[in-house]
Amino acid sequence: MADAVKADENVQSLKNLAHRLRILSIDATNKCNSGHPTSCSSMAEIVSVLFFNEMRYKLSEPRDPASDRFILSKGHSAPILYAAWAEAGLFPVSDLDNLRKLDSDLEGHPTPRLNFIDVATGSLGQGLGVAAGMAYVGKYLDNADFRTYCLIGDGESAEGSIWEALNFASYYKLDNLVAIFDVNRLGQSDPTSLAHDMDTYKNRLESFGFHALVIDGHDVQALLSAFQEAKLTKGKPTAIIAKTFKGKYFPEIEDTEGWHGKPLGERGPAAIEAIKKLVTDFDFKPVPAAPSEAKLHPVDAANIKLSEPPAYKVGDKVATRVAYGTALVKLNSDRVVALDCDVKNSTYSEKLRKINKLRHIECFICEQNMVGVGVGVGCRGRTIPFCSTFATFFTRAYDQIRMGAISQSNLNFVGSHAGVSIGEDGPSQMGLEDIALFRTIPNCTVFYPSDAVSAERAVELAAQLPDMCFIRTSRPNTAVLYDNAELFEVGKAKVVKKSEDDKVLVIGACVTLEEALVAFDKLAGEGIHIRVMDPFTIKPIDAAGILANARECAGKIITVEDHYPEGGLGEAVLSAVAECPDIIVKKLAVPRIPRSGPPADLMDLYGISARSIVDAVKSMI
Amino acid sequence: MADAVKADENVQSLKNLAHRLRILSIDATNKCNSGHPTSCSSMAEIVSVLFFNEMRYKLSEPRDPASDRFILSKGHSAPILYAAWAEAGLFPVSDLDNLRKLDSDLEGHPTPRLNFIDVATGSLGQGLGVAAGMAYVGKYLDNADFRTYCLIGDGESAEGSIWEALNFASYYKLDNLVAIFDVNRLGQSDPTSLAHDMDTYKNRLESFGFHALVIDGHDVQALLSAFQEAKLTKGKPTAIIAKTFKGKYFPEIEDTEGWHGKPLGERGPAAIEAIKKLVTDFDFKPVPAAPSEAKLHPVDAANIKLSEPPAYKVGDKVATRVAYGTALVKLNSDRVVALDCDVKNSTYSEKLRKINKLRHIECFICEQNMVGVGVGVGCRGRTIPFCSTFATFFTRAYDQIRMGAISQSNLNFVGSHAGVSIGEDGPSQMGLEDIALFRTIPNCTVFYPSDAVSAERAVELAAQLPDMCFIRTSRPNTAVLYDNAELFEVGKAKVVKKSEDDKVLVIGACVTLEEALVAFDKLAGEGIHIRVMDPFTIKPIDAAGILANARECAGKIITVEDHYPEGGLGEAVLSAVAECPDIIVKKLAVPRIPRSGPPADLMDLYGISARSIVDAVKSMI
Repeated sequence: MADAVKADENVQSLKNLAHRLRILSIDATNKCNSGHPTSCSSMAEIVSVLFFNEMRYKLSEPRDPASDRFILSKGHSAPILYAAWAEAGLFPVSDLDNLRKLDSDLEGHPTPRLNFIDVATGSLGQGLGVAAGMAYVGKYLDNADFRTYCLIGDGESAEGSIWEALNFASYYKLDNLVAIFDVNRLGQSDPTSLAHDMDTYKNRLESFGFHALVIDGHDVQALLSAFQEAKLTKGKPTAIIAKTFKGKYFPEIEDTEGWHGKPLGERGPAAIEAIKKLVTDFDFKPVPAAPSEAKLHPVDAANIKLSEPPAYKVGDKVATRVAYGTALVKLNSDRVVALDCDVKNSTYSEKLRKINKLRHIECFICEQNMVGVGVGVGCRGRTIPFCSTFATFFTRAYDQIRMGAISQSNLNFVGSHAGVSIGEDGPSQMGLEDIALFRTIPNCTVFYPSDAVSAERAVELAAQLPDMCFIRTSRPNTAVLYDNAELFEVGKAKVVKKSEDDKVLVIGACVTLEEALVAFDKLAGEGIHIRVMDPFTIKPIDAAGILANARECAGKIITVEDHYPEGGLGEAVLSAVAECPDIIVKKLAVPRIPRSGPPADLMDLYGISARSIVDAVKSMI
Repeated sequence: MADAVKADENVQSLKNLAHRLRILSIDATNKCNSGHPTSCSSMAEIVSVLFFNEMRYKLSEPRDPASDRFILSKGHSAPILYAAWAEAGLFPVSDLDNLRKLDSDLEGHPTPRLNFIDVATGSLGQGLGVAAGMAYVGKYLDNADFRTYCLIGDGESAEGSIWEALNFASYYKLDNLVAIFDVNRLGQSDPTSLAHDMDTYKNRLESFGFHALVIDGHDVQALLSAFQEAKLTKGKPTAIIAKTFKGKYFPEIEDTEGWHGKPLGERGPAAIEAIKKLVTDFDFKPVPAAPSEAKLHPVDAANIKLSEPPAYKVGDKVATRVAYGTALVKLNSDRVVALDCDVKNSTYSEKLRKINKLRHIECFICEQNMVGVGVGVGCRGRTIPFCSTFATFFTRAYDQIRMGAISQSNLNFVGSHAGVSIGEDGPSQMGLEDIALFRTIPNCTVFYPSDAVSAERAVELAAQLPDMCFIRTSRPNTAVLYDNAELFEVGKAKVVKKSEDDKVLVIGACVTLEEALVAFDKLAGEGIHIRVMDPFTIKPIDAAGILANARECAGKIITVEDHYPEGGLGEAVLSAVAECPDIIVKKLAVPRIPRSGPPADLMDLYGISARSIVDAVKSMI
């Protein structure tokens, strides 16, 4: 009987807290005159039950690895998430008055500038992949008992990335993951395609391998039971499909169209008054439950390096993609994780799978989800993830990559099959925009190793760097250029050929560096000397090295790249010398959509072979 | 009885043709020593039944708008598609010997360089969205009876874009669409996540609103019945889930791992011999059925223009995104179609919806599918599609956009909410890489209109151009700069401020052009004159105009853009002047991940406001 009373009290407290979160959301968005209070209100009971009953976490260390995780996939509902942490006691409720202000980290959408946010959300449909990555690490790599909760809006559940993540989660039996769907019926501009068709949601989620429960998302008792059922469900993840109403309890606004992304303005005070009447206790302070494990076992994800130096012979032909696989297994940490999209025998990430299947996550043909999972895997600093696929297929996940950068992710990307040098498979498979893509990512280091030795070192450096990295690898075998003891640094180019009498500085990488070396020989035979440079990283580019060498070559530079002319090596070099007068740059790049054919023929046809370099040099001197 | 005999003969002919297609696929891939014969073999009966019994088309005009459509989503099976057209009589079977050769359009993956291909495929999971776009046009805009068939690999069915397209197709009740899943169990490097779990496929497809049939995909009679059932199914699309085997009928290869993307090599002759034994007639020439309609009603999608000129007053404040909506409804053709992802009240595409709901396709929050549908809508030249969403969310569909270019699509993109000038919503919503993205797309024109007049003209020009276009629009209201009669051309910049004594050429667009004009006034007050240029298009950039004006400004250029420093306006300008000595360029751009705040504060904080321009000018002179 006492238990029943206590349970009733708990339910009432959670209702009160839900309403208090509603009020705070209305108030904060009204104060900054923007934001999404109606999207907050539909999930108020869900958040209340999660934060004040279900989840185990520490205010002293919001990112403690032993704690449960919460991902707000519908990031536009940030105000209620901030309000929950404030009510939990992490920071004063009055801080919510600074929502969306320039000097506050309580931004319009959550980012890890806040110490209680793991990943940025706000581009929709991305949270579940991240959550699945966290759950994978918990279940398979950390053997930890933390649980992962992801709250998804019904509008965003149309994103294919959600369905990729659902398939992933059930395939890997992530029973430590709960996906909560806030089905409030209304999108931004119209009702969603499924509106309140709860049966269809249930059928879809069950068919994707989830234990699926439809509940009234405003019923605290139903939520408590659902989370309990999720905990008892083994061998599959659980989906809680919550029927809710947008703007719940906002008079004349609840469940009506035209109120997405709008503060209540003049209607705010009346809404707050109406909701206040539902609250029986304004002072109750919830006490979050602590994680069951005081600490997770420590891991050493720092001081990572190759266990052995590269072991090649100069002149041997080895594809850089193969060197990637070789380096991956040589990294001296069992916290290195590889992810791939069913091309592991092309990217050579399979080398890691052969020694450790748990540390190689097959993501099937779902590039978006691979990146999302990778961001989740890397969270809380306990693993070092590498994602690989064909370079061009990272275009599929550009939005996830972009958000990964905002999430301060440590994820590394390895894109194979760069450029026309892949040959016969044709343009759909050729990475011709990947450098442009990754150069736009703030803080992303872009490696373009020219041989197997430098490729292995690029992998080592990427593993060490705290931010995102991209390594471009190539399909063909190319000659080993460097001694195994050669040192490589981010932002430091290598001068591969040099004389006192160089007329032009030619900068190429990997397959085009090989062409530059052929051109070097041809021109040398005619008494024309060129300097040949291997940039190693395209971002940061070695501006000082380029400038110094260009000046020794009469200010003349040729860049040659197996990439479209925009955003790649050529424009990186141009930006490096932009403010220097007397430097001219001729860009050689793939000028149009290429076609199928033998690699050498294609490189010649599109003007990036030795022949074109020779012609360009002659035209400049 | 005679009918039964005829039916039996038909079945036998279709079996024979399936085997002939298998043999041709083995042979062609062996001759070029690359390609995917096992992936062809699993779908041989499906292709045979489609091309030689089910589909209605004309060899004289493979892209006749009245004909049925076929999209090979699993583009790597191109050889069997080419073989089917050859067997149908479009070109000699001997042409297949040229597969993947440099001088042949029979490329590794299909592209519209071939007259029987509507769209390029090869990046997986994209075909169904395109097919849905075609089916939408057939059902709602052309009221035509052509049917659309899309063949999807089981591996690629993991791509979220497939599930976006399925939801779209059932929401719009596309009963003229048949999705065929070739469930051959094996991916490239491993079995697929669902292998031969046909029940799960069926449950998933039914839950997504399809009439779903599981059949033996090698059983010709079952295929004939399934297509018949699809034709009789009204109000929903049909999915035929075909259980097949990779490498079917290849001795010791059928259904075994390790044979993806490999020609049979030495095993080829034995496989061909084995399959030949199954063929009872090598000479039968199939005769394709003709479309039921001789011709579709003609449409006028050429000579399109604004029905009325822009109607603004110089100095009035109008957001370019609003001008987009205004122009969209002024285009003088009922073949203009808009697509949007539930942000139509932010992009202003809703203006078209208000006058014609059929011509405004709500794609819900599925950017990938929107682009796929848009490519499909534009096929066969009868409509002019415009896709709109926030500029940054086109990153979600970069792969579809890239493939759209290879598909020679006429699709136009309109990205609103460019840059930090959107303000409080924060970095997840800010387009800061969109120019870089679209600049990499070959043949794509990138418009960045600076006011409402030029925005309307950009829409008009985009509608007229045969290739892809991107129009970047902004959220804030900006001043109308141009007279309503002003003429705009692709690749022609406008000089907005000019004197005889200009010290620096400042190039900005829209919000940064406004800042440049403020800087102009400030500097003029100090006796410093700058030239101010509006580039109008970023690709092609007005190289001649920039160079001529820069030379009149002592070779000094400042670019200022609400975009990351890579791949945008600054690097477009740098490329334009790359080979010209004595020109220096200072780039002002958003240098790092921005945060939430008021637009003006953010522009100032990230160094793209008038203040930064003034400082940059002073540092250069």
